[in-house]
Amino acid sequence: VLFRSPKLVMTTNEYEEFFKLFPPPSSLKDTEERVAAFAKTASEKNRRIVFITSGGTMIPLETNTCRFLDNFSAGTRGSSSAEHFLKLGYAVVFFHRKHSLRPFYRHFSGKLLDLLREGEEKLEIREKELVDLYRRHRQTIHSEALLMIEFVTLSDYLHGLRTFARALCPLGPTVMFYLAAAVSDFYLLPEKISDHKIQSGGGPLEIKLLETPKMLKPLISSWAPKSYMVSFKLETDEALLIAKAKNALEKYHHNVVISNLLDTRGRTVTLVFPDEEKMLRLSDDELHGGMQIEMKIVDTLSELHKAFLSCTV
Amino acid sequence: VLFRSPKLVMTTNEYEEFFKLFPPPSSLKDTEERVAAFAKTASEKNRRIVFITSGGTMIPLETNTCRFLDNFSAGTRGSSSAEHFLKLGYAVVFFHRKHSLRPFYRHFSGKLLDLLREGEEKLEIREKELVDLYRRHRQTIHSEALLMIEFVTLSDYLHGLRTFARALCPLGPTVMFYLAAAVSDFYLLPEKISDHKIQSGGGPLEIKLLETPKMLKPLISSWAPKSYMVSFKLETDEALLIAKAKNALEKYHHNVVISNLLDTRGRTVTLVFPDEEKMLRLSDDELHGGMQIEMKIVDTLSELHKAFLSCTV
Repeated sequence: VLFRSPKLVMTTNEYEEFFKLFPPPSSLKDTEERVAAFAKTASEKNRRIVFITSGGTMIPLETNTCRFLDNFSAGTRGSSSAEHFLKLGYAVVFFHRKHSLRPFYRHFSGKLLDLLREGEEKLEIREKELVDLYRRHRQTIHSEALLMIEFVTLSDYLHGLRTFARALCPLGPTVMFYLAAAVSDFYLLPEKISDHKIQSGGGPLEIKLLETPKMLKPLISSWAPKSYMVSFKLETDEALLIAKAKNALEKYHHNVVISNLLDTRGRTVTLVFPDEEKMLRLSDDELHGGMQIEMKIVDTLSELHKAFLSCTV
Repeated sequence: VLFRSPKLVMTTNEYEEFFKLFPPPSSLKDTEERVAAFAKTASEKNRRIVFITSGGTMIPLETNTCRFLDNFSAGTRGSSSAEHFLKLGYAVVFFHRKHSLRPFYRHFSGKLLDLLREGEEKLEIREKELVDLYRRHRQTIHSEALLMIEFVTLSDYLHGLRTFARALCPLGPTVMFYLAAAVSDFYLLPEKISDHKIQSGGGPLEIKLLETPKMLKPLISSWAPKSYMVSFKLETDEALLIAKAKNALEKYHHNVVISNLLDTRGRTVTLVFPDEEKMLRLSDDELHGGMQIEMKIVDTLSELHKAFLSCTV
């Protein structure tokens, strides 16, 4: 295993230190206004809102980024869930890693040339399923039910999370946070980031990464304290999975942790609540019939969110 | 800047050590046969062959890969160049990072839903340019002029490079190697790769990376010594650019280094030869007219390759 230094003592305001070290992305103010306007429309149309994070965060090792650390995440969970939330009438803010999978687009991405057939002086797609997806996408755009926002780096992600959560805070319990992004647990101090491409020929390279402050804490306690809060745990070691989820719930006091193992995450997840656990699983028939586990997750959460709303409003 | 350890003494067979540390991908033998069959067909059809590498290599930090180090490369240079080589009649082996840009596909990727229009019970694309690209792609597949091979990790890449270069070796000077991939200069020893997801909460994380052996050396001196060899240098610091290219040519004795700066690489490149330099550049008019710098690169290299062939055969 990689070498770990002894744990440093962390201050409670460690995330404020982080925000001081990394300037916000230049587009943040504009995007904040788009989120606020989107929330206003959703509220006027009596829609519940889900703020979905999706994809991995990048840690640049160089300012002119050639090299970077990354977290594996194609964005399947987030983009598939977004489609199902839209189907249930939610307004969706989709805060995602640039170039990761997006709702609707994901069914076409990387294989367009294989889906198209040649007609007379044009290319065509006739599969009913894809025509329907296209129509649902157009309708979603037309009804202003989907707001797409991109991030790349860990710093962009965390700045965005804070700013957009605060913008959604006034809507309180009508907002669900669905934190499916794979956020890096480690970051590199700005002073360690190389201005130019790191040159080879200089021998081994040592990188010392610090632990990312846990943003769930301020998100739940201060940025959006009244919202319904869903976090995710992805592990590769089954022995750790449920215990880590319970631990997170005790620490942050949020609503539910969705736990999954890397290898089986497309088929089985466990919803961990403070007082119980609920496993969701696709049967063989469901799996072969093309059902996605996200349908079950989103259906379940939507009901829980309704109950949450009715006892908090 | 990141901390660098004092340079270790490297053995001349350091790349053999590397291959001992990392097992080959399980598909390697099958892919080797596909390369050999493809080369045979190309040879029978009297086509020159170009072996293009494209995209970045991944360095996993964990066996069940959640976290990894990566090199930024969308694959634009390689995939655009592949299209131009095909236009000039080359047979193209496109050895690329999975999910990076591919010839023809790249014009549709990520924006299919925006390109499609709704017809009667079907979706359509009518833009002549895209219809033409689709046809060229079909024709390419039909005429067996393009072989696509994927890699993900640095180890997969290096195993593939060695094996496929040896498979192409018998064709000697009719083969051009066009090494546009962004190959990691550093790797992590297998014993340091974590079996499971690295847990947070244990303090800072230190990663010690070793220098990747320079595979240009055995490629040029032993795996494919008679082929026309084109390497790339991408830098962010203009002051280093040409000197580093000259240095590589002196060290490896290959044919040409294509030097480019990260910020201007879409518009300006310098072909560095042992005895001269040739700058290729898109004018404003060419740029706005949609010309790609790869057209100029590929046209120039094709002529050089012809001259090389006529004096070596």
